[in-house]
Amino acid sequence: MESRITPRDQDYNQWYLDVIQQAELADYAPVKGCMVIRPNGYAIWQNIQRILDDMFAETGHRNAYFPLLIPESFLKKEAEHVEGFAPECAVVTHGGGKKLEEPLVIRPTSETIIWSMYRKWISSWRDLPLLINQWANVLRWEMRTRLFLRTTEFLWQEGHTAHANEDEAEQEARRMLEVYRRLAEDYLAMPVVAGLKSEREKFAGALHTYTIEAMMQDRRALQAGTSHNLGQNFARAFDVTFQDEQGRRHLVWATSWGVSTRLIGALIMTHSDDKGLVLPPRVAALQAVVVPIFGKQVDNETMITEARKLAAETGLGRAVEVDERSNLKPGFKYHHWEQRGVPVRIELGPRDLEKQGAVLVRRDSGEKIFIERGQVKERLQQLLEDIQASLLERARERQRRYTFTVDNREQFEQKLADPGGFLLAHWCGRGECEEKIQAETKATIRCIPFDAVEEAGRCPFCGGESRRRVLFAKAY
Amino acid sequence: MESRITPRDQDYNQWYLDVIQQAELADYAPVKGCMVIRPNGYAIWQNIQRILDDMFAETGHRNAYFPLLIPESFLKKEAEHVEGFAPECAVVTHGGGKKLEEPLVIRPTSETIIWSMYRKWISSWRDLPLLINQWANVLRWEMRTRLFLRTTEFLWQEGHTAHANEDEAEQEARRMLEVYRRLAEDYLAMPVVAGLKSEREKFAGALHTYTIEAMMQDRRALQAGTSHNLGQNFARAFDVTFQDEQGRRHLVWATSWGVSTRLIGALIMTHSDDKGLVLPPRVAALQAVVVPIFGKQVDNETMITEARKLAAETGLGRAVEVDERSNLKPGFKYHHWEQRGVPVRIELGPRDLEKQGAVLVRRDSGEKIFIERGQVKERLQQLLEDIQASLLERARERQRRYTFTVDNREQFEQKLADPGGFLLAHWCGRGECEEKIQAETKATIRCIPFDAVEEAGRCPFCGGESRRRVLFAKAY
Repeated sequence: MESRITPRDQDYNQWYLDVIQQAELADYAPVKGCMVIRPNGYAIWQNIQRILDDMFAETGHRNAYFPLLIPESFLKKEAEHVEGFAPECAVVTHGGGKKLEEPLVIRPTSETIIWSMYRKWISSWRDLPLLINQWANVLRWEMRTRLFLRTTEFLWQEGHTAHANEDEAEQEARRMLEVYRRLAEDYLAMPVVAGLKSEREKFAGALHTYTIEAMMQDRRALQAGTSHNLGQNFARAFDVTFQDEQGRRHLVWATSWGVSTRLIGALIMTHSDDKGLVLPPRVAALQAVVVPIFGKQVDNETMITEARKLAAETGLGRAVEVDERSNLKPGFKYHHWEQRGVPVRIELGPRDLEKQGAVLVRRDSGEKIFIERGQVKERLQQLLEDIQASLLERARERQRRYTFTVDNREQFEQKLADPGGFLLAHWCGRGECEEKIQAETKATIRCIPFDAVEEAGRCPFCGGESRRRVLFAKAY
Repeated sequence: MESRITPRDQDYNQWYLDVIQQAELADYAPVKGCMVIRPNGYAIWQNIQRILDDMFAETGHRNAYFPLLIPESFLKKEAEHVEGFAPECAVVTHGGGKKLEEPLVIRPTSETIIWSMYRKWISSWRDLPLLINQWANVLRWEMRTRLFLRTTEFLWQEGHTAHANEDEAEQEARRMLEVYRRLAEDYLAMPVVAGLKSEREKFAGALHTYTIEAMMQDRRALQAGTSHNLGQNFARAFDVTFQDEQGRRHLVWATSWGVSTRLIGALIMTHSDDKGLVLPPRVAALQAVVVPIFGKQVDNETMITEARKLAAETGLGRAVEVDERSNLKPGFKYHHWEQRGVPVRIELGPRDLEKQGAVLVRRDSGEKIFIERGQVKERLQQLLEDIQASLLERARERQRRYTFTVDNREQFEQKLADPGGFLLAHWCGRGECEEKIQAETKATIRCIPFDAVEEAGRCPFCGGESRRRVLFAKAY
């Protein structure tokens, strides 16, 4: 019954892996760098899919599916794109027992194959905007992998849109980043800083990249979602044009945007504790578990019947379960469900039965609340909302506490080393300086925040002029 | 406005492709044998996913995700399995710019990678049964491809279960075939014959394979779903054992079962007509479309407002749309939605407005029904159910009419040639005879139907003894 979870302050990386293993979220696969997403982990992903599919339907996007395999020559059509992705590709050289005439790469992202199809589908202004999303697996050959955060294969959604002009594409890229911000904050209870990536950190082939960045419990940053204004780069590479209402031909404007199973890693590192997984109710597949407490006063069968009734009274459907195992002690069961991050445990003992009540226990705070049976649905709903809100607030508070305004190199390095966190610092705007800062401090520019105010200053590293602070951090 | 759909009796194969193209369900991809599933096609797949996910939750199955790439050596661990699948595999030989030490195959099916994980997860009788499903893409190198029916890459679900004894595994394989039968008949309105595959047609590595077989409009059979009792073959190959309650070790018993995007091809060929796609309401993303008819009596804006109100009154949410395009004639719009298989068109003209009514038009029969505005929700629901039921009945009637009991070779060949269909014939039970029949007639044994009665007879080809009739047909 002892916890097999290493405490965070002892070994943060081991804690992360222990939480995943004890909650049975994922496992390493026999192929290097690949992972198996176990049912408890996949259930979170399906909830994220459901939430995003609803939001995408609201914004007029429709799902489609494009091939896994891309001719190597396609990748080469956009110069920056191939430079960024070719080194990470897995290459198929044989199929059906024969060597292929042209090698095929497994998609690391689908811009090229999708724009080769858009060429067939787009010819007139009437065909625009084209708003498509794809749920898919992608592969990027990674040297150093970590479950959920960085794996050779991962699951994601990638939106790919086509527009008649620059302005629309820009609005689309911004709008989808806002969808991601809502997903992160309103559902994952994970506060983020939204902003623009530097030229050095942008997507290979984009005009510019927008990002949401979250702070993990070890105060490192995690890029949680990105949205790219691709300009006319892919339309040019694949010769995709449209005729406007006056009969003139133009290249099409593009965006792409994606979030991945990495979000599950972000969730774990935002909320979990030394007891194990903590999940926001809105993405938890199991929101409550009823644990009947067996004893001599009442026979087990009656307790199970009552526990099932109580579960039905919650109105949670498949999101509530009864732990009917009679060979385990209550303490063991509490521990079991705590490790798995179920937001509320409902204890039902013989005395609760007598008093026509039950006890709700919050996973996040451990608080116990006695309720009357007639109120279970209402009180539970309220409690789930409270938990959702307080997880967000706790994470916000951490982000506030560990975001520092620094004005010189000494402060920069000191805060970065201890306690670590987000640093708001000036920056000269030069890529060479950015590269040097990373080499010397391991911090990267996470983004130029949308809410950065105009403020004259000097780069703490080179002294160059700056007009706004940018966000630096060590990152996953 | 002319139909660009080739009539069925002129060129059935071209008709099939025309229906797909006009309904914008799918498109050929630049990689040979691969397909793009366009939003209208993918919406059908998502409905099938939703229906099956609900059924799988009822039967206690949970979704997970296993890696795309499988070490070549894994495939070789089960002798029949590698023989069946190795010739169809796509092989990754390079990753991250380097040649791999061991080639990896892209999964053609996931038994081997999954059973390599089950070895880690199963050790005690308490770990059984293990009931897991995966939604994934798979690749099988195909020479002759056809959109949806046979493509190099396709989407599917594959269930993989582990059991403590043979009996449970057998029940599970049968139970999941019954789930597929319900999916086919109750949702896809596609009647099927359920039964056992012959040894020659079973899955590579299975003890035996169950199947559901549907009849297409050209009277060919289409295998719509299969379920396999894998015995202990994969447990043996991957050394997966469990300890029973008495502490004894046993090999684990297995099943696997799957349906794929091929079902969309089956849907098309079961219900569609020379006007285009016909969809059963339960899998149609768009169940109704409101077409306001513009004229001089009422201004367009009022007509659109009323059409939107009417759409809201249907209560169909996102499953109803208003065709607000003002630059197109009603006839063009009718045609447009007919080609796309929307089950009900709701026409709203100025005179309907005056009479406080609307006209419902069935896609399947063309029947027009005038209804009062107050009744729209109720009448539409009834009509959608009628359409669902009558599509199933029409397909059943076709299957009945073209299923023949044949007793000698002459009858066999004659019915197979004209009109074509399902042949119930005796069979000696020998694989060599089965092979010869296929070589000479192109008919294969689709299954030994569950409902076949005991009846002594003789194989019409070799004269060997037989105790029941089996189902022969030419197949996709």
